Amino acid sequence: MQEAIDLTQDECRRLLDSGVGGRVALSSPNGPHIVPVNYSVVDDAIIFRTSPYSVLGTYGRDSMLAFEVDQFDHERQHGWSVVARGRGEVVVDVDQLAHIRSTWEPRPWAASGARGLHLRLRWTELTGRRIGVGWDLQASLAVRRTV
Amino acid sequence: MQEAIDLTQDECRRLLDSGVGGRVALSSPNGPHIVPVNYSVVDDAIIFRTSPYSVLGTYGRDSMLAFEVDQFDHERQHGWSVVARGRGEVVVDVDQLAHIRSTWEPRPWAASGARGLHLRLRWTELTGRRIGVGWDLQASLAVRRTV
Repeated sequence: MQEAIDLTQDECRRLLDSGVGGRVALSSPNGPHIVPVNYSVVDDAIIFRTSPYSVLGTYGRDSMLAFEVDQFDHERQHGWSVVARGRGEVVVDVDQLAHIRSTWEPRPWAASGARGLHLRLRWTELTGRRIGVGWDLQASLAVRRTV
Repeated sequence: MQEAIDLTQDECRRLLDSGVGGRVALSSPNGPHIVPVNYSVVDDAIIFRTSPYSVLGTYGRDSMLAFEVDQFDHERQHGWSVVARGRGEVVVDVDQLAHIRSTWEPRPWAASGARGLHLRLRWTELTGRRIGVGWDLQASLAVRRTV
């Protein structure tokens, strides 16, 4: 068994910044949902796109969200996960949308549906844990983004 | 952009069966949470272990849960995700616990806390999507389990 170790805020932020894909959890009248998304971190918020008619577009706005990124190496039994929690809000301001696009616009791979809605999660809680020691957190990333 | 294609029930079940790690989403009084877990599929339910005092142990019992597994290759822009939704319940029956242990007992890597609680998710909804075509779903798994 490996010890789980809390990550520092700096480590959480670095891992969050360097990822490209994660999952959003949201509550709906018929229970929680998880939706995998592409994302980007713009300033101090997580941005992802969805369709206004999706579960995420319907119940993810103006309500609490939890967003997770992780990387686990099951053979070596080590890995990490970072969770950001906060309110989801629709970005409507034209200047803010332009700023998001200029920094990095999340481009979902999936073409189906119009993902015209930009959701922003300004986290109020950022926590993370690693399992196993003696390895490089960043090097374990499948894809690294240089911001 | 890639097309997102719904997976069949058979494909979802095969991918779910062959995974070892996923994430559970649950609703709590202060919003949704996501918790990464090791899991196993025993009969027609997902089993994972947690501590009775954790967020998952506290709010994950007798309430709706969403469980997700995925595998994405960000460079090649293809991947899949499977989501199972249903009620979480604590397994207390001694015979059922013995059956779970004999089939495959989920062994969390992390040692911290006593993960004495077995939670069972008998899904009522199993859905999945793939992005990109011309590749083998199973071969993309980091770790494959032969049940």
